[in-house]
Amino acid sequence: MAEKSSSTQVPVDFGILVFPTFQALDAFGPLDALNMLSKDFPMNLSIIARTLDPVSTKHRDTSLNPFGSNFAESVVPTHDFNSAPPLGSDDLDPMIDFVKRTYPSLKYIFTVCTGSWIAARSGILDGRRATSNKSAWGDTKTVGPNVKWVSHARWVVDGNIWTASGVSAGLDAVFAFIQEVYGAEQAKKIAADLEYERHEDPSWDPFAEMYNLPKEGI
Amino acid sequence: MAEKSSSTQVPVDFGILVFPTFQALDAFGPLDALNMLSKDFPMNLSIIARTLDPVSTKHRDTSLNPFGSNFAESVVPTHDFNSAPPLGSDDLDPMIDFVKRTYPSLKYIFTVCTGSWIAARSGILDGRRATSNKSAWGDTKTVGPNVKWVSHARWVVDGNIWTASGVSAGLDAVFAFIQEVYGAEQAKKIAADLEYERHEDPSWDPFAEMYNLPKEGI
Repeated sequence: MAEKSSSTQVPVDFGILVFPTFQALDAFGPLDALNMLSKDFPMNLSIIARTLDPVSTKHRDTSLNPFGSNFAESVVPTHDFNSAPPLGSDDLDPMIDFVKRTYPSLKYIFTVCTGSWIAARSGILDGRRATSNKSAWGDTKTVGPNVKWVSHARWVVDGNIWTASGVSAGLDAVFAFIQEVYGAEQAKKIAADLEYERHEDPSWDPFAEMYNLPKEGI
Repeated sequence: MAEKSSSTQVPVDFGILVFPTFQALDAFGPLDALNMLSKDFPMNLSIIARTLDPVSTKHRDTSLNPFGSNFAESVVPTHDFNSAPPLGSDDLDPMIDFVKRTYPSLKYIFTVCTGSWIAARSGILDGRRATSNKSAWGDTKTVGPNVKWVSHARWVVDGNIWTASGVSAGLDAVFAFIQEVYGAEQAKKIAADLEYERHEDPSWDPFAEMYNLPKEGI
């Protein structure tokens, strides 16, 4: 998510929302590309979470960790939700509120994987084209009944809303974003630095086919 | 890096070394795949750094950050080097010592990008085949003059030493590792979950060609 910048044509202030159980690559794939970009442009990153406590990828639902693995990484937030309610049974609620409240001031919003569920639940995707990961497509449609979900897409852009498909798709989408906003040369340079072979066609999506999804929203 | 496990055929205890200025995707690409794997196998991860302070991706050399960007992520170590020397002008020295000291007890060691430089400087790559990123190949050869560096490789396996090329190559290499150690079905399943299109041929390396590297070590 890139916050509106006042005087430059490219975004300056970026924020990423992280929550316990987040998927590491969802965050660090795109962030790594943006870390590189920040060498060539003035950019600031806020890592935003409900509290300033380190946020772990670890699942708390033990049914998702049947072997009792202790295998997780924690990232350090730089900001909290500021006015996050002190109570609440659903950790996502403050995040959804935050998206709803903040979106009007944003230049862009960028989601990866089920990040689009949070955007959908905030209402900002209503009437918009968007995508999400492909292994939970039925849930995606339930979460956002008023969203024009695109089933076969590596990523989707509708206005200033960028939604990427599952996990790794965030990398292709962030390179498309860099290309769009910073130019093709920047995207090419960073992909070369990261030795990353991009998928440049947003309709490339073998995973939609793998999960036998009907063609929707196209 | 997977530490030796006592009673199972697959590794249980993993450790990753992180250091200030680390490349996020180097760590979190492979770790994300392993996070997934840890749902199906008992696995523990130690995030090891010189101290227990959060470790940032941020460059301290301001010449690498000419626009004064404040764009970085910090990960929380779970362990320090235990007997790290309290003094030292080179942050890498304790890490190199740690690798040298720890390698004999390891079942596998896995490096991404210039992680192989640390392995090389520890001496454990002497006489071994290995690779590293392609944009700094001349430096790689200088750092490890006794290593059989393979210039055109997405990753290289020599015995229990896995070395991946630059950044994203860690993803392909970690999937190859998962396939080797946990089986092809696991690798396939996680790649599908992550919507990641693997490069399964370790000799696939358009970046060596991009950087016009001579064919060495093949």
